Amino acid sequence: MIEVDYRFPPDVDAFRQAKIIAIGQTAGSWDQRFAHRDSQLKKHLAEVVKVDNNVARIRFPVFNTENDIASLLTMIFGKYSMAGSAKVIGVHLPNSYGTRAKFGITGIREKLGIRDRPLIMAIFKPALGLSAADHADILRKVAMNGLDIIKDDEIMGDLAVAPTLDRLLACRRVLDEVQEKTGRTVLYAVNVTGKADQLLTKARLLVQNGANALLLNVLTYGFSVLEALATDPEINVPIFAHPAFAGAMCASEDTGLSYSVVLGTLMAHAGADAVLYPASYGSLPFDPNEENQIKNILRTRNIFPVPSAGIHPGIVPKALADYGQDVILNAGTGIMDHPDGSASGVRAFFEALERVGKPFTLDTLPYGALRRAVEKWGT
Amino acid sequence: MIEVDYRFPPDVDAFRQAKIIAIGQTAGSWDQRFAHRDSQLKKHLAEVVKVDNNVARIRFPVFNTENDIASLLTMIFGKYSMAGSAKVIGVHLPNSYGTRAKFGITGIREKLGIRDRPLIMAIFKPALGLSAADHADILRKVAMNGLDIIKDDEIMGDLAVAPTLDRLLACRRVLDEVQEKTGRTVLYAVNVTGKADQLLTKARLLVQNGANALLLNVLTYGFSVLEALATDPEINVPIFAHPAFAGAMCASEDTGLSYSVVLGTLMAHAGADAVLYPASYGSLPFDPNEENQIKNILRTRNIFPVPSAGIHPGIVPKALADYGQDVILNAGTGIMDHPDGSASGVRAFFEALERVGKPFTLDTLPYGALRRAVEKWGT
Repeated sequence: MIEVDYRFPPDVDAFRQAKIIAIGQTAGSWDQRFAHRDSQLKKHLAEVVKVDNNVARIRFPVFNTENDIASLLTMIFGKYSMAGSAKVIGVHLPNSYGTRAKFGITGIREKLGIRDRPLIMAIFKPALGLSAADHADILRKVAMNGLDIIKDDEIMGDLAVAPTLDRLLACRRVLDEVQEKTGRTVLYAVNVTGKADQLLTKARLLVQNGANALLLNVLTYGFSVLEALATDPEINVPIFAHPAFAGAMCASEDTGLSYSVVLGTLMAHAGADAVLYPASYGSLPFDPNEENQIKNILRTRNIFPVPSAGIHPGIVPKALADYGQDVILNAGTGIMDHPDGSASGVRAFFEALERVGKPFTLDTLPYGALRRAVEKWGT
Repeated sequence: MIEVDYRFPPDVDAFRQAKIIAIGQTAGSWDQRFAHRDSQLKKHLAEVVKVDNNVARIRFPVFNTENDIASLLTMIFGKYSMAGSAKVIGVHLPNSYGTRAKFGITGIREKLGIRDRPLIMAIFKPALGLSAADHADILRKVAMNGLDIIKDDEIMGDLAVAPTLDRLLACRRVLDEVQEKTGRTVLYAVNVTGKADQLLTKARLLVQNGANALLLNVLTYGFSVLEALATDPEINVPIFAHPAFAGAMCASEDTGLSYSVVLGTLMAHAGADAVLYPASYGSLPFDPNEENQIKNILRTRNIFPVPSAGIHPGIVPKALADYGQDVILNAGTGIMDHPDGSASGVRAFFEALERVGKPFTLDTLPYGALRRAVEKWGT
């Protein structure tokens, strides 16, 4: 069974609205002309489980959906999303519902051969305007200095200035070089874009050409695209899900869905291996409770939480306290704009990881990349 | 160039936020290390055109995107959607941007051979629980009585109780029967669902098996899926775009996007042939100005507006006054739950169309299907 929690504003009769949803978002009503189908029709109706504090829990039959996110969303909040103020604040799915990540935390750790520490991830910056060769140069600096994962900026698509396949091929050479010289595997999550058919074809082409990870803007391309990638046997690389556009459906208090539903539950049942979302101590306003829920939901399905946006070396102690080891710390400018360059940006993160439990202030930090980062961005 | 209007709450410095968007959603900032790339990087920056009444207009380079909706949304409102309160209330695209509908108003009229009146569309009800044979029985009644188009309910997917191909095959026989007996073509917009790859394959299979129209829940499956269908030469049938889930991203005053952007501009540049949306005089709360804008935006690209939800024969005079001829009136229960059955539901709509300019009250209506409809649902 699928259970969904809808929160209504105080002036709304939550029980009445819940009844409307339970009927209107499933079989609907029928009259004596369909009396002979009564038992069959009734099976498809949802039921109101409870109403507490103007939050209604509704239970839907799982066979009303197709075991995917799109049919789920159409049922639980399709037409009703336009009916007035209501926010979906919880979606409870059977464990078997949807798509399982092929890799997740254990699979990504295995690829990298790193079991016992957080992973450090960077983003190519500036986001638009560099050539494929520029990307390779940037990658060489950070990858040779210990970086685990790099990703395209989410707005870097398949553009003339640096076509996706060119970026991959240029960066793939660097990844091979790093592997040869250091024995380390570094993942590059290539942003896969295009109309759905082209995107799926391009993803396969990228993997054939050595892509070892993909990045997808799940909410602008569609959950159905993530699910197609996640169930495609040819796409045998981890998929990093980006939260771009999440605010359009999550930022309102009274409408849409909560961030923990979209970036937690739905991503976790759609096959993402790692999910990016704003960290509450980053540069975007984000509720620490939502962040905590996302983390927990993702981990119950072995998916890597990737707190992002405004991450810099100074937040490492806080992040470790909140997250422990199973986290990917994702920094854009927090690595690329280190006062001594991106290589120092990476080193600063590793210095911070090694300093766990030791004092972490400008008074106590020895001279080095971390100290320089903290001078710029604080703790 | 792409121009986007962002509305900010009164307490927000709109100009400052606009600058953040123009830089942060494009190239970002860079330092002297990339000075040699200055001119290339600058080309990708957006610029603030004006700020009026806390609405900022920002102009983005079109080559930052891939001529599709997903890359557009990622750029204009990807990360920034999570940055605080801002609503996208206008998107102005070059005419050449995106995907053109294959059929649109003229193409759908041509298929039906009807040039000079609104089209009448019904929805299978009850929505879930009927068999494929039940669907065929319903279709026979309404199609033999003059209906132009029928569609699946948006929550009817590819379910065991009535698999999509079974529904199509059962209904296709009825469509052929109607064609043979009356010479009339009736369209059945079959709801196409599934993970993106399966959905595209299924759509082709349905067309091969005689589907003469498709229905897509664009916002739960993704604009990239609509664009893939609309550009696929094998999908040589009109695509009806359903607005399910639109409220999740449009219903808030302060966040998300306006309905006219999502159901007007974006649908119109993504290849939909006809777009459903709530009618302001229907059962859902909907702003008449937004409805009017959607209508106008769709028509500039030859796309059929399909006001929906709570449409019944009594609203025909209002609809004709607002819309004139180029509209599809889409009724679910307003046809299926007519007191004398669905055949009378269809006849009531045609009686109403023929009564244009004549009085339309219970005092003046002659006995018949229309009068019975008005007795039940009013005007």
